[in-house]
Amino acid sequence: MTSQELKQCHDRIKPYIHRTAVLTSSLLNEISGADLFFKCENFQRMGAFKMRGAANGISQLTALQKEKGVVTHSSGNFAQALSLAAKSLGVKAYIVMPSNAPQVKKDAVKGYGGQIIECPPTLQDREETATKIQNERGATFIHPSDDLDVIIGQGTAALELLEDHPDLDYIFTPVGGGGLIAGTALAAHYYGNNCKVIGGEPFEVDDAYRSLLSGKIETNTTTDTIADGLKTQLGVINFPIIQKHVSEIIRVEEQEIIDAMGLIWERMKIIIEPSCAVPFAALLKEKEKFKHKKMGIILSGGNVDLGNLPF
Amino acid sequence: MTSQELKQCHDRIKPYIHRTAVLTSSLLNEISGADLFFKCENFQRMGAFKMRGAANGISQLTALQKEKGVVTHSSGNFAQALSLAAKSLGVKAYIVMPSNAPQVKKDAVKGYGGQIIECPPTLQDREETATKIQNERGATFIHPSDDLDVIIGQGTAALELLEDHPDLDYIFTPVGGGGLIAGTALAAHYYGNNCKVIGGEPFEVDDAYRSLLSGKIETNTTTDTIADGLKTQLGVINFPIIQKHVSEIIRVEEQEIIDAMGLIWERMKIIIEPSCAVPFAALLKEKEKFKHKKMGIILSGGNVDLGNLPF
Repeated sequence: MTSQELKQCHDRIKPYIHRTAVLTSSLLNEISGADLFFKCENFQRMGAFKMRGAANGISQLTALQKEKGVVTHSSGNFAQALSLAAKSLGVKAYIVMPSNAPQVKKDAVKGYGGQIIECPPTLQDREETATKIQNERGATFIHPSDDLDVIIGQGTAALELLEDHPDLDYIFTPVGGGGLIAGTALAAHYYGNNCKVIGGEPFEVDDAYRSLLSGKIETNTTTDTIADGLKTQLGVINFPIIQKHVSEIIRVEEQEIIDAMGLIWERMKIIIEPSCAVPFAALLKEKEKFKHKKMGIILSGGNVDLGNLPF
Repeated sequence: MTSQELKQCHDRIKPYIHRTAVLTSSLLNEISGADLFFKCENFQRMGAFKMRGAANGISQLTALQKEKGVVTHSSGNFAQALSLAAKSLGVKAYIVMPSNAPQVKKDAVKGYGGQIIECPPTLQDREETATKIQNERGATFIHPSDDLDVIIGQGTAALELLEDHPDLDYIFTPVGGGGLIAGTALAAHYYGNNCKVIGGEPFEVDDAYRSLLSGKIETNTTTDTIADGLKTQLGVINFPIIQKHVSEIIRVEEQEIIDAMGLIWERMKIIIEPSCAVPFAALLKEKEKFKHKKMGIILSGGNVDLGNLPF
């Protein structure tokens, strides 16, 4: 990818996304000892940064591809993002979801106009069902995180953050499937002023941490984390970008995630989802290293089930 | 009061307050059928509009008065506001609180540097204790809502909102002690373009609704509402302003408050307290009247106990 491609992507998806606010909090600056700039993708359309990648993925299709629609498998934010991006671009979206996905997630996808295809709750079934939709309907598969157009789309959040604050020393993001951190790392590489990118990851799903150590993609053996958006695995497209451009992954405990989430809710009065609290938890955990630095933090999303909160 | 005084107040308190964001939501516009502009006083310092009135109340004191400190009785947001405003202005704040006030509220006041004086949990005890502090320490009493300087201070939220959006047709606020709605009504009167002010009030504490009907200050016989910030009574200074400049009070049920609060949490991803949801609940309840109008809504505050949510 070139620096130009990121800007072109940003121009391309601008009609379909919000330029989200960057918030600061003197109380959280005090607690962390650093200058924090929170990029509020929880305020993004459908409530998460995934809207960016989905919009770019669909925008890049040919007219014929657009006519046939897109398909993905996801029960999380990317399902909603692809549905809404497709609707915004006048394209049909098929969303393969496990039959046991929560009704609230199914309703959200339907609300954004996505057509749900249910399948048994295994990865193999999800992939097979998605392939079937590709074959039968000619729909184009768009992966939630391991797709270069999606990665570049996710990078536009950091691009905007660096436009607003060009002198950030670090940008923190969560690490799930790897799309956001890879896109962020590219944005920081091309547009930062020696800006380092660091990932936050729960100990429970530390595949990215271990993959960077071993030099090959590792899988998760446990996934018992409150950060449900981060259970996914790194992919072959984003991993080399992460290897090359991400400085470090910091792992955090479950209670540290809940505490960081509570701090942001209580002090900033904004709603973030558990996955979104992970990079802030990571920063607090090693705050001595970042004293007096200018820190960007991508707040990745705000979709929570209010009936099931960890407080 | 003159229009000039409101502007002067605003200039006076600017160093001590945030100019809060005005947020919009296309989803909530769709649901309400109107154009909504949310003035986010939940992002104000200490989490509520009360910071404005407290800062103005203290700013207006003489040097001698400032030396002796200020006193109020409150277990709610005004206790925190007066503590933080006093600290910001280098003044001592004595906060009379009922002995059964929640520890979290006592901690918040202490955190902002207020000195708590506990008293038995009756209104008479609160008033007597506050009088004692005035007499013994020479502190100046500042009422949370029935004080012209406090009222004018609260009006600066609407002043900012009208500076940003001069053509609002209506501004909605909650009605508790009456300070916010009285200040808002003055701001709309002087700086609005035929902008009407409407209050939202729970049925459970509808003293303002009944007072406007009867022409005299009525008291609440029930106070069993989730909107704990609105249990207070109108006062002799704010009531005539409300009579003259407020168009209407709309009453809402408890479930309507919870639903409106949930909508704002889920759709806007911001944290508001139950009292703060009341005007939006009122607007939704009578939304046919406000179709296609430009509506300002003062989101009064965001201080909630995360361990005790109504969802």
